[in-house]
Amino acid sequence: MNRITLSPRIRMTPFHDRTVAAGLSDITVYNKMVMPTSYGDLKAEYDRLINDVAIWDVSVERQVQISGPDAAVCAQYFTARDITNMAEGQGKYVAMCDHAGRILNDPVLMKLSGNRYWFSLADNDMLLWCKGIAAERGWDVEVIEPDVSPLAVQGPKAEDLVAESFGEHVRELKYFWFIETDLDGIPLVLCRSGWSKQGGFELFLQDGSRGNDLWDKVVAAGEKYGIGPGAPNHVERVESGLLSWGGDNTPDSNPFEVGMGRYVDTDTDVEYLGKAALQAVVAAGGPERLFVGVNVEGELGEAWPLPERTPIMLDGEQVGTLAAIVHSHRLDRTIGLAQIKRTVVEAGSTVEVETPEGYKPATIQKLPFL
Amino acid sequence: MNRITLSPRIRMTPFHDRTVAAGLSDITVYNKMVMPTSYGDLKAEYDRLINDVAIWDVSVERQVQISGPDAAVCAQYFTARDITNMAEGQGKYVAMCDHAGRILNDPVLMKLSGNRYWFSLADNDMLLWCKGIAAERGWDVEVIEPDVSPLAVQGPKAEDLVAESFGEHVRELKYFWFIETDLDGIPLVLCRSGWSKQGGFELFLQDGSRGNDLWDKVVAAGEKYGIGPGAPNHVERVESGLLSWGGDNTPDSNPFEVGMGRYVDTDTDVEYLGKAALQAVVAAGGPERLFVGVNVEGELGEAWPLPERTPIMLDGEQVGTLAAIVHSHRLDRTIGLAQIKRTVVEAGSTVEVETPEGYKPATIQKLPFL
Repeated sequence: MNRITLSPRIRMTPFHDRTVAAGLSDITVYNKMVMPTSYGDLKAEYDRLINDVAIWDVSVERQVQISGPDAAVCAQYFTARDITNMAEGQGKYVAMCDHAGRILNDPVLMKLSGNRYWFSLADNDMLLWCKGIAAERGWDVEVIEPDVSPLAVQGPKAEDLVAESFGEHVRELKYFWFIETDLDGIPLVLCRSGWSKQGGFELFLQDGSRGNDLWDKVVAAGEKYGIGPGAPNHVERVESGLLSWGGDNTPDSNPFEVGMGRYVDTDTDVEYLGKAALQAVVAAGGPERLFVGVNVEGELGEAWPLPERTPIMLDGEQVGTLAAIVHSHRLDRTIGLAQIKRTVVEAGSTVEVETPEGYKPATIQKLPFL
Repeated sequence: MNRITLSPRIRMTPFHDRTVAAGLSDITVYNKMVMPTSYGDLKAEYDRLINDVAIWDVSVERQVQISGPDAAVCAQYFTARDITNMAEGQGKYVAMCDHAGRILNDPVLMKLSGNRYWFSLADNDMLLWCKGIAAERGWDVEVIEPDVSPLAVQGPKAEDLVAESFGEHVRELKYFWFIETDLDGIPLVLCRSGWSKQGGFELFLQDGSRGNDLWDKVVAAGEKYGIGPGAPNHVERVESGLLSWGGDNTPDSNPFEVGMGRYVDTDTDVEYLGKAALQAVVAAGGPERLFVGVNVEGELGEAWPLPERTPIMLDGEQVGTLAAIVHSHRLDRTIGLAQIKRTVVEAGSTVEVETPEGYKPATIQKLPFL
């Protein structure tokens, strides 16, 4: 039953032809778009990411662009973090919350100019959210999904590759900072970012008709670095404790419950959605749950995502949910990502998690693992 | 590349185990949930729908529930149709539009009581939309996705099956009308509805833990009618001219451009989102495009959905988009669904559509085909 029916309801990416030519074997649907997940050899894809450089089609990271005279106040309203002092060319990892402080997305917010911002999104339709609220507020902004499709190069050799293609100055880019540039006339935004902890860049293609050209140029430049196709890597992201919003968390989670506390400003004068609710969480001493790692006893053969979150138990009572469980290649043990009651985490309890071989004891630890 | 990676980001349905046991072979993702699309024999599934009765897991038709003192005004605001005289127990096919009159969804709106409504949704996250706007307006409503998962029985024998299970009175239910009831204690809403033109009902299960029970009871009751598994049927829905919102239309479409003109009230005093924009379309003499059928020359072997909308041409110029092309079993010819410029439709022009065998001439006709 793992065969998917494609239809115009699910969009293709600008790099689709090249991903198929590269041997694409597995996909998912993310922001109503085809997202490559594997080219058939997960371990080789992992090794490439850890040791060399991988090319990832992450077009599904759609942008919501907010532009116009009220763009700054509008972008701030949607962001649970004080962005007053953000510079042009800077990006920040932020939480977007609803009126009750529940997290709706964990994008990178990019400030292209004082009146143009991009939210570079996880899998939830912030275009609907932002368009509706901005219109109700009567703000003088345009809210659109621009023709922008990120292509990532990730891994320790990504910087050499990018420096060779764009110039040595890109080595100076700080994390989440970006420049508007082009590659032989292909317009793009180059950002030091990507959904791994192995370093790298994302090339935000600004012309969907040039996908094949951009892919080919990156692959040609990367050949000497051993570039090959890959995708956001499930094992590496668990090792690195990277949040998969919507998968790792229950829908009622606040940002503190997905490990984003350090990116939330509650002691600020700026106004944003959910602020009062988030202040109340802080005043109450913290959230109900924490986003943590679990070290699970025993060997795990299967490194593929859990199809559903499973319960985490303590003394016969559910105290959390497990969202991912993998065999870590570098740690050579079984690890997972979970939301667990704060009191249980703080007590250092050993919990029980469901595995393909039944319930197993697991210790809790802070993220990341690596 | 048609293998899908499942993960907790994509929800399973309450009927998932039973669909797998019934031989589920193909799925799609719809409202971030697994949607069965085939059990491996599309022609048998079509025949069952046309001649007997089929059971469909359509849990992906999620509900947005709006309840509370301001529910009526709130539901009206989201609905481009005058619902003033709607009765309790009545459903209506409606367009939900944004502030510019672009259609965001084509749900069935169900009035459970004067202060409780369900929007039974196509594939777009109206929970985000309604929650955000209702909160900004300060309405005294609760906006949630309740634990409600529709299971459809479709086909000419569906009524006998449902009458036998729920009583003869259900034969009196008019189209889109519903009752709150139960099946041996399983709570549900029974509605005469479903995404086919073959007649039938949808059982809106109100307790996700009872999915297996409900499936088993319906299958047991349906055995003598030749019930078997199926899914919204691509060929039948093209023959019937049923809209697949988001697939059939470009994102900038208004309701008149997806064949929903007769369900839109512009000459009304009630206030709703997009009203001024829709009035302007009427004042301008009609929309730019119409949603129509095309009769395509030649045989078509492949009845599976197009992966992407393709251009429709006239004299070397693009005049529309083709969203679906199938071999109609009952008409024994090649038919499709398209959005085409109104002027071209009104001129009765013959256009050219892309098929797996290249461009072919096609005549335009009103929907439905059957």
